[in-house]
Amino acid sequence: MSARRKVYVEGSQPDIQVPFAEVDLTGGEPPVRLYDTSGPGSDPEVGLPPLRGPWIAARGDVAPVRGAGTPLAGSRPTQLAYARAGVVTPEMEFVAIREGVDPSVVREEIAAGRAVLPANVNHPESEPMIIGRRFLVKVNANIGTSAVTSSIAEEVEKLTWATRWGADTVMDLSTGKRIHETREAIIRNSAVPIGTVPIYQALEKVGGDPVKLSWEVFRDTVVEQCEQGVDYMTVHAGVLMRYVPLAVERVTGIVSRGGSIMAAWCLAHHEENFLYTNFPELCEILARYDVTFSLGDGLRPGSIADANDEAQFSELRTLGELTTVAWEHGVQVMIEGPGHVPMHKIKENVDLQQEVCHEAPFYTLGPLTTDIAPAYDHITSAIGAAMIGMYGTAMLCYVTPKEHLGLPDRDDVKAGVIAYKIAAHAADLAKGHPGAQAWDDALSKARFEFRWEDQFNLALDPETARAYHDQTLPAQPAKTAHFCSMCGPKFCSMKITQELKAYAEKGMKDKSEEFVEAGGKVYLPLA
Amino acid sequence: MSARRKVYVEGSQPDIQVPFAEVDLTGGEPPVRLYDTSGPGSDPEVGLPPLRGPWIAARGDVAPVRGAGTPLAGSRPTQLAYARAGVVTPEMEFVAIREGVDPSVVREEIAAGRAVLPANVNHPESEPMIIGRRFLVKVNANIGTSAVTSSIAEEVEKLTWATRWGADTVMDLSTGKRIHETREAIIRNSAVPIGTVPIYQALEKVGGDPVKLSWEVFRDTVVEQCEQGVDYMTVHAGVLMRYVPLAVERVTGIVSRGGSIMAAWCLAHHEENFLYTNFPELCEILARYDVTFSLGDGLRPGSIADANDEAQFSELRTLGELTTVAWEHGVQVMIEGPGHVPMHKIKENVDLQQEVCHEAPFYTLGPLTTDIAPAYDHITSAIGAAMIGMYGTAMLCYVTPKEHLGLPDRDDVKAGVIAYKIAAHAADLAKGHPGAQAWDDALSKARFEFRWEDQFNLALDPETARAYHDQTLPAQPAKTAHFCSMCGPKFCSMKITQELKAYAEKGMKDKSEEFVEAGGKVYLPLA
Repeated sequence: MSARRKVYVEGSQPDIQVPFAEVDLTGGEPPVRLYDTSGPGSDPEVGLPPLRGPWIAARGDVAPVRGAGTPLAGSRPTQLAYARAGVVTPEMEFVAIREGVDPSVVREEIAAGRAVLPANVNHPESEPMIIGRRFLVKVNANIGTSAVTSSIAEEVEKLTWATRWGADTVMDLSTGKRIHETREAIIRNSAVPIGTVPIYQALEKVGGDPVKLSWEVFRDTVVEQCEQGVDYMTVHAGVLMRYVPLAVERVTGIVSRGGSIMAAWCLAHHEENFLYTNFPELCEILARYDVTFSLGDGLRPGSIADANDEAQFSELRTLGELTTVAWEHGVQVMIEGPGHVPMHKIKENVDLQQEVCHEAPFYTLGPLTTDIAPAYDHITSAIGAAMIGMYGTAMLCYVTPKEHLGLPDRDDVKAGVIAYKIAAHAADLAKGHPGAQAWDDALSKARFEFRWEDQFNLALDPETARAYHDQTLPAQPAKTAHFCSMCGPKFCSMKITQELKAYAEKGMKDKSEEFVEAGGKVYLPLA
Repeated sequence: MSARRKVYVEGSQPDIQVPFAEVDLTGGEPPVRLYDTSGPGSDPEVGLPPLRGPWIAARGDVAPVRGAGTPLAGSRPTQLAYARAGVVTPEMEFVAIREGVDPSVVREEIAAGRAVLPANVNHPESEPMIIGRRFLVKVNANIGTSAVTSSIAEEVEKLTWATRWGADTVMDLSTGKRIHETREAIIRNSAVPIGTVPIYQALEKVGGDPVKLSWEVFRDTVVEQCEQGVDYMTVHAGVLMRYVPLAVERVTGIVSRGGSIMAAWCLAHHEENFLYTNFPELCEILARYDVTFSLGDGLRPGSIADANDEAQFSELRTLGELTTVAWEHGVQVMIEGPGHVPMHKIKENVDLQQEVCHEAPFYTLGPLTTDIAPAYDHITSAIGAAMIGMYGTAMLCYVTPKEHLGLPDRDDVKAGVIAYKIAAHAADLAKGHPGAQAWDDALSKARFEFRWEDQFNLALDPETARAYHDQTLPAQPAKTAHFCSMCGPKFCSMKITQELKAYAEKGMKDKSEEFVEAGGKVYLPLA
């Protein structure tokens, strides 16, 4: 029934095969190609094929092991390092085809640090994608087992489900007993970059007590995750001891899990955050595997009252300093931001982040634009996400309807991804991203011409659009509704517009008589 | 179970009783008062009591009939006329208490035409409310029978349902056979202003053929609806003959039902729109009953491609001219706008409308910020609605998930109202409306202090928030989720913030030792 097909566009070498979802249309309209994150599909027992394996091997800085390999001593096989050296890697070319831009643009944006291409040498299964303000706005979905509920199979299923609806990256935020095994299953089956927050696993290793954390435990955890193939890691290195008291008088204090873990550690030891003091060594580790930093915002606001305060912006300035350090080590960097921010304070976040972080890509949660609607925070935050995307945020971390209330299930994951794909696309339109509006135009043209199946097939969620339509008018084309519905009025407007086109050709007076003589029936559904 | 109660605040006379929803809180917190649109509740067989009856009678410009009356010859009993004369009516005082402002502000805003208080003398059951940029952003919900499906009882139920969730006005867009009876049932049971589009009923009277419409049929329909008590009417008087060809080359032509009806009429008769040519007489009719104009945007864009084009803005300029004419007749006016508009073109709509319509209140559908998501247009449009509200739009017309696809059912009405209440409140926050943030602050404080029941009772939708919470963690306080969830991390952040407050008092070093000695347990849920 669906007219969506996966097609591949070949690059400069036969193994660069860039996927798109192609939608065939009726009425003589050309097919429409949409960005596609769904991956090649996989057998969870086997995992995905190592698409990038040969490219990584060919660069000669990794010793082959299984699909990818172990970085050679002293090597920094990062996309940033290659971009700076003037090399357009196959990954960059793949991304250029995907985004519809010249490969030189991709290379330049990565070299300047304005974009990241998260691609651990040990995650060769991933289809390259890019995060940067000159490219399509991306969406991240969070999944992960908890101590008590989900199984590994369920999480792999959530991964597949999230990318089916358009998630560009997935963060595995598992806690509990089987973190390593869960992550292994997710990475081996993921065609999108996988992010993690290593402090969660480190905390499990010390029995859940943040006071017992140490740089050594954290470092070993990071190496373990680098070896597995994690593409980007959230590190709360900007939660400095002197910032913690700034959060004391807030309405909602510290709401970031990682932020509160590090604050607790600093508080107990009365020492500076070990992620900050050991940051250069951390950079060296990430550089060896081409793992991208996602510098965490441990002091992000958890309520409208706390938005844009000194705690939040102090940490942001420190993330800017750390960005420079990471770049010196050849490591790709993006910066995490927002949380809860009212609409009129959103732009300031992007402007300040771009300034103090030297245009490194911004990656924000929401923001939620009001606190009053638990159970609808995918909507309170889609508003903020669309706006912050318009102002230049490169990737949006989704929020599901269960935010603040419980764990997202399959339906919540879908609701969150869809709301954020809407926000991201609205932002692409507002930024005037080349080609973004072609999708809207194709769908609206189908709508205006009553090509219902084309409209469904072009929809972000074809199944639900079709189901809603069939629910009230399975066979009949016209029903009533005031604004802009595909009912009587649209039928009329189409007819009228067609008449008007004839008028423009023949002159209105003659046509008017002809129209009345013909019965003047433009309102068939109401007659 | 719910701690929400309806309370009334008395004005300067005992029959001015202004309703609020008061939420009792635990933890020694004072109760929170929320704006309440739900009305006193009614027996559909009897209708609501005529709250405003005595106020209308006391002004002496209406001869009593049933609850309200018939305007005396030559009288213009409009709130605008009274405001200009320096009179603060009981309706204005009611509104002032409701909005938390001085009555003089209400009078001044109405007198200047910057706000409307839609209150037909024949709808004495309504609780006064105001629409203007200096006040809380309002939400309209559309309901109405179609030719084939809904019953009158169902529509009254939808009215009650929509206002329960916060709809500030309701438009009855019924078509088909029993328009008059449906409207009668709705008005007699409505505590919120009721809007209509009289051309729909006029069209039914001429058998559904727009060519057979005439000024006389329309005029008689308007009088009929004025007599019944409709509070505001959409009139597409700005669809001038010369603008119609401007819509020919659009992607989606004319998508407004009223706009296409009038375009069809002009096209068939080759005469200027009779709503425009007879506008002064129409003003005289509306003035007699204090019916507010909602000047319709018949040429609003139906797709991203058509936004802010010459057809749309030409009509808007004409609506500005008509605003002046209506004001000369003492008639209150608001202006309808948007449809589909990408984010970067939203502000221009408000700025131009405020300029050419002399600051008359703006009342917009959405706008939808992308065309790609049928089945989710409550979200595509909540983004635009929040933004256009922030820029100064006074009332937002909701969009339901069924937009473009079918007729909204009960669930769709709720989804639309909730999404729009979020947008309106986000806009109130962004505009810095006095008192708006108190709601967010109370909820966030409850969240941070784990007063779960308080959080639910303060939520825009307490039932769903409670249900989502109980679904995953009925008894247990901690589960895992990355960002900002009410799980382990929040528990920690609260504990840490409490520790930090003690630190600030005692000095960090001592406290650090004490903290470690005490077990350093800030992470109980994870331990």
